[in-house]
Amino acid sequence: MTIRLAVDCMGGDYGIPVTLPAVVNLLDTSLDVSCLLVGVESKIAAWLDVNLPHRLLSRVQLVNASQVVQMDELPRVALRQKRDSSLAKVMELVRDGKADACVSAGNTGALMVFAYFIIKTFNLIERPAIATMIPTLSKPVCMLDLGANVECRAPHLFQFAVMGSLLTTAITGITSPLVGLLNVGGEEIKGNSVVKEAAQLIRRSDLNFYGSIEGSDIFDSAVDVVVCDGFVGNIVLKSSEGLVRMLSTALKREFTRGWYSKLAAGVSYPVLKRFRNQFDHRSHNGACLVGLRSLVIKSHGSADAYAFEQSLHYAAKAVRGRFLSRLEGSIAKVLDG
Amino acid sequence: MTIRLAVDCMGGDYGIPVTLPAVVNLLDTSLDVSCLLVGVESKIAAWLDVNLPHRLLSRVQLVNASQVVQMDELPRVALRQKRDSSLAKVMELVRDGKADACVSAGNTGALMVFAYFIIKTFNLIERPAIATMIPTLSKPVCMLDLGANVECRAPHLFQFAVMGSLLTTAITGITSPLVGLLNVGGEEIKGNSVVKEAAQLIRRSDLNFYGSIEGSDIFDSAVDVVVCDGFVGNIVLKSSEGLVRMLSTALKREFTRGWYSKLAAGVSYPVLKRFRNQFDHRSHNGACLVGLRSLVIKSHGSADAYAFEQSLHYAAKAVRGRFLSRLEGSIAKVLDG
Repeated sequence: MTIRLAVDCMGGDYGIPVTLPAVVNLLDTSLDVSCLLVGVESKIAAWLDVNLPHRLLSRVQLVNASQVVQMDELPRVALRQKRDSSLAKVMELVRDGKADACVSAGNTGALMVFAYFIIKTFNLIERPAIATMIPTLSKPVCMLDLGANVECRAPHLFQFAVMGSLLTTAITGITSPLVGLLNVGGEEIKGNSVVKEAAQLIRRSDLNFYGSIEGSDIFDSAVDVVVCDGFVGNIVLKSSEGLVRMLSTALKREFTRGWYSKLAAGVSYPVLKRFRNQFDHRSHNGACLVGLRSLVIKSHGSADAYAFEQSLHYAAKAVRGRFLSRLEGSIAKVLDG
Repeated sequence: MTIRLAVDCMGGDYGIPVTLPAVVNLLDTSLDVSCLLVGVESKIAAWLDVNLPHRLLSRVQLVNASQVVQMDELPRVALRQKRDSSLAKVMELVRDGKADACVSAGNTGALMVFAYFIIKTFNLIERPAIATMIPTLSKPVCMLDLGANVECRAPHLFQFAVMGSLLTTAITGITSPLVGLLNVGGEEIKGNSVVKEAAQLIRRSDLNFYGSIEGSDIFDSAVDVVVCDGFVGNIVLKSSEGLVRMLSTALKREFTRGWYSKLAAGVSYPVLKRFRNQFDHRSHNGACLVGLRSLVIKSHGSADAYAFEQSLHYAAKAVRGRFLSRLEGSIAKVLDG
């Protein structure tokens, strides 16, 4: 089976200079993938003419889109005015079954709105959520929602738990992922009313439920899936990114203070590099908009070619792991209970 | 003026072996402080007989308390059954004006309940909040609430903003601290309804309001005060602690992998130690229960003597900075306005 990815070549902070080199690397390493390259055709063709190895020619196809959604554009305005944009086109391609998944580094708000209106959610799923794999000590952990829904009721959190569990199985192969509900303490009596009610819903289902977990448990690999509302998830994700940035700035500062520190930095370089690579957020780039009838993968807007390539791999994995058919098969059974 | 601290000598995971050495160090370095040592008198006296330098004798006073609240005790049960505990006694001492602040490493739930019922909150302040200073790149930032209130309405967040601002002035000397409201984006239209309404309340007040901040802004020193509800605050604080623990475990692992890494570790030791000290959470131990009519400072239960000493210094600073009278003076003006 060939996996067909629709790639928004114009999205993100950089567009073609980032997206197309990533596609070339992907095709070179994943022989079961072909790409629909969506964007301003003349520009894509010009780049490919110079840079695409001849052996890959048969695995790419160009799809013209005359418009580009800008990173700062208002999502609903863009939806009205930019139906011939690369973002709209990739959504249509997956919706119509011409691609198995689509990938874009475009503006998150626009991505959500386009996906919601062009693709739509499954029955019984009220809202799509954003799910990503975050690196922890011994394995990547699936966390959702990361910001699609800033106000949630208990059934939404339950739906996130179901979708996160199925996505984790598709991506990692774990058959019954352990699900944790993010809370202020492990005990049942702790937390706000939404979380308490959600815990009951998850406990009554077939999911492998660990129970409530605390913030500190996210990174110690205690569970496979972390469920929270989009307000908390977005703040935890961004504060973690900020904390890592602060620590790495401070570490750099210490290693450049005086000649001895610089010497130590030189000696330690291979060790520090190995450490950095382990938690390089670029290696974990790619978030899935779960709950939609098609596979939509979002890349960080500021991704470089290496990071964008990872989001393409993530999309291919979700297709190989049959995430969508798992989800479709489970929704009625689990949620309609 | 002498600052009188009431110290719960029995609280925390270790009790006397941690609390009393911390008191001795505090008295040696802070000449304007004296301590009321509260707990089982015979045990405290036995320790002091051996370890207290004679020159400090006049600055300590023993207060007997026959009971100890255990770390896993249910708060409301303890409140009924342990009125002669060291925790109850320190609260009574500050309430009755016999101490300027009290410090305990006891169980957080019990601390909150005892403080709420024995000391009570100021008029117009509905709920106490937990506030602490967290280390960021260029300065400590005051963050609240860290877990006292898992469900908040907009007026609560506004009250936290007022209290956090006054506490920051008392602790750091900054006259008009910049207040940020933790949210999922900087724009006014983002966030849940509680946060949006709270932003309006804060904007209409005299506070120096930065606006909404994202999680990543916490650690880049963009503001002096970070306001959030206790559910989000607790999860952010604990996930940050977990993340730091994970990174330091991984760093240790890399520096002990093979002979070259071990050599690099030896060479880099002084640099890494300087780095670690900078963000040592022990140096920032101590959280203030703001909103109460007296100063109550909570230490981490697992604090060692150095960390517990920092919470005593924090208490002394809050007294010197006249946090309580600032708060009392502002409440009616700001909140009743």
